[in-house]
Amino acid sequence: MNNFNFYNPTRIAFGEGKVAELDQLVPHDAKVLVLFGGESARRTGTLDEVTSALGNRQVTEFGGIEPNPSFETLMKAVAQVREQGIDFLLAVGGGSVIDGTKFVAAAAVFEGDEWDILLQGGNNIERALPFGSVLTLPATGSEMNKGAVVTRRSLKAKLPFHSDFVFPQFSVLDPTKTYTLPLRQVGNGVVDAFVHVVEQYLTYPAQAPVQDRFAEGLLLTLVEIGEQALAEPENYEVRASLMWTATLALNGLIGSGVPQDWATHMLGHELTALHNLDHAQTLAIVLPSMLRERKAAKLDKLVQYGERVWNIREGSAEERAEAAIAKTQAFFELLGVKTRLGDYDLGENHIEPLIQSLENHGMVALGEHGDVTPDVCRRVLQASL
Amino acid sequence: MNNFNFYNPTRIAFGEGKVAELDQLVPHDAKVLVLFGGESARRTGTLDEVTSALGNRQVTEFGGIEPNPSFETLMKAVAQVREQGIDFLLAVGGGSVIDGTKFVAAAAVFEGDEWDILLQGGNNIERALPFGSVLTLPATGSEMNKGAVVTRRSLKAKLPFHSDFVFPQFSVLDPTKTYTLPLRQVGNGVVDAFVHVVEQYLTYPAQAPVQDRFAEGLLLTLVEIGEQALAEPENYEVRASLMWTATLALNGLIGSGVPQDWATHMLGHELTALHNLDHAQTLAIVLPSMLRERKAAKLDKLVQYGERVWNIREGSAEERAEAAIAKTQAFFELLGVKTRLGDYDLGENHIEPLIQSLENHGMVALGEHGDVTPDVCRRVLQASL
Repeated sequence: MNNFNFYNPTRIAFGEGKVAELDQLVPHDAKVLVLFGGESARRTGTLDEVTSALGNRQVTEFGGIEPNPSFETLMKAVAQVREQGIDFLLAVGGGSVIDGTKFVAAAAVFEGDEWDILLQGGNNIERALPFGSVLTLPATGSEMNKGAVVTRRSLKAKLPFHSDFVFPQFSVLDPTKTYTLPLRQVGNGVVDAFVHVVEQYLTYPAQAPVQDRFAEGLLLTLVEIGEQALAEPENYEVRASLMWTATLALNGLIGSGVPQDWATHMLGHELTALHNLDHAQTLAIVLPSMLRERKAAKLDKLVQYGERVWNIREGSAEERAEAAIAKTQAFFELLGVKTRLGDYDLGENHIEPLIQSLENHGMVALGEHGDVTPDVCRRVLQASL
Repeated sequence: MNNFNFYNPTRIAFGEGKVAELDQLVPHDAKVLVLFGGESARRTGTLDEVTSALGNRQVTEFGGIEPNPSFETLMKAVAQVREQGIDFLLAVGGGSVIDGTKFVAAAAVFEGDEWDILLQGGNNIERALPFGSVLTLPATGSEMNKGAVVTRRSLKAKLPFHSDFVFPQFSVLDPTKTYTLPLRQVGNGVVDAFVHVVEQYLTYPAQAPVQDRFAEGLLLTLVEIGEQALAEPENYEVRASLMWTATLALNGLIGSGVPQDWATHMLGHELTALHNLDHAQTLAIVLPSMLRERKAAKLDKLVQYGERVWNIREGSAEERAEAAIAKTQAFFELLGVKTRLGDYDLGENHIEPLIQSLENHGMVALGEHGDVTPDVCRRVLQASL
């Protein structure tokens, strides 16, 4: 096991009806800005429920945070926070709204050019406004971690940042809030959570049996409930397991003390930045080819993954690894998330600009060994055509 | 899944050499009291290493916190804290020292009779001194939770308390600090962690697949490494896995959203209070008989436990459950922790006073269904003769 530091102070209030606990979770004298995405938050009644739970507090709203939240939009929220003297933020939505709120929390009290937060990956954050979230889309884990990704459309750049200052103070996880989600978003959510686990698990053996078992437990659960989450939108138990699994997939726990990869995410970010694909779609395109390209380096863990998650116990190590990758790809397809560039009308001619963009963002030594170069990424994309 | 709230703000610094990080973890202007147990902390050099890491801070010591820490001893530490104006506590030791430090942290700033903290289970705690820990014995999980157990020898009472105010601010987990532990304490630690998991897992199915998988992951790891932890005291990877497993066994995570039992612990506490047995010894005596006595209520989970942890796949449900219990008991014996009252020179005549003590402490409706009465406990002890 590698040395590590673990810290996660986010409070979780989990279950049906937990939105009412906002009254205990948000300071009574707070001036609250409620941030959300599209109008579904209002149409489903969640915004009303939130406002009602906040009682007599001063509450204003900022809507319109888009999927893959943009610096341009978020800076409007920053301006509103500063103008209105807001001192508490409440994100109501999925990972994009929560990621966006993390940026607003840090940028509103940042001295200097706010884009520098992204350019320095959050290392320059010294304070942030306190904030919480009401999660409506299980996928990214942003509700219980200190990371976020922001896109600057004018630069076609999608960049992550991390800081202890942007842990949500709390997150309310009510599975019934997911009942009205479009199925595309549910399928995306399962894929996103699945790949988060894979990026922290499918590297090389590191004598960390607990982390392995936890990761496998999350993957097994996603495999068991994935289809049902799509077929039975109002199955409380299934949606509850999906929600908690997605949170635990990226709250820092399973990645503590083990090598991590993240090459699939970094290459995927470029696909979103240049072609506006859903985040999970980019992961579904990249991951299977990335695993095949790096089969030798990941062989031991691929075999373990095949055995423990997919019950693959026959054949050579190479055959088992390939079977495990094929199962993974088929699972994504089953969830309605296509795994080929061609499925999204992208072809050979789109590859070089993606590689160029990766290089421009300094992503030239990715993966758990730092040997996933732009050349490797090019082969991965070619295999995904 | 049941509704739940989860919160755990303890920072973990894990790995060889992490004691040096005390310099960042303890405030630079702190007046520190270092609390420890026997002289082994000094003999092994850990106290010196801690003092050295604390640099120029004002540091005084309080040694002599015994296993199953006593109210009587801890109140001496409280007096020292008050006299010397201590404002930060640092526990160096295992669960007893950390539990004791939690009590000192709360009692030193408590208004009223400090024993009331135990009588009210911690509900009356409104503040506590900040504290951290350097763990030397993987077992109880106290290093990353908000619970503690204190014994008042004059009353022969061993009682737990819980409060958000007594989460350690940080815990340093260096596996090399466990190399010099007596094997009895290592065996005890494995049993203690194992039973912590069982009390949160072996109840009834609650549609919480992730919690089940995590619990099974911890149990599987303990089964895989238990003997090796005894046989190879300086195997870093084994001791590291044991340490992290014991912490995760009782940090609130696997018990969130699921029914819990704890009858074995409550009955075990009476055995320690009246006969001074090691905590883990009491669990090893009580658990197998408790599981047999309650086999019908726990049948579904016993079968699942047998299959996933012990690979028991043959026979009727009843047979599988019995086989799983037998495997559990044999595992404890293999670790050198005896599982019969007779092994500790206790017999039939000791049972009634234990039951009387249980009743005196109000422990009359234990277990996940509240139906573990003193009569049930009597049968359990008789079966453990």
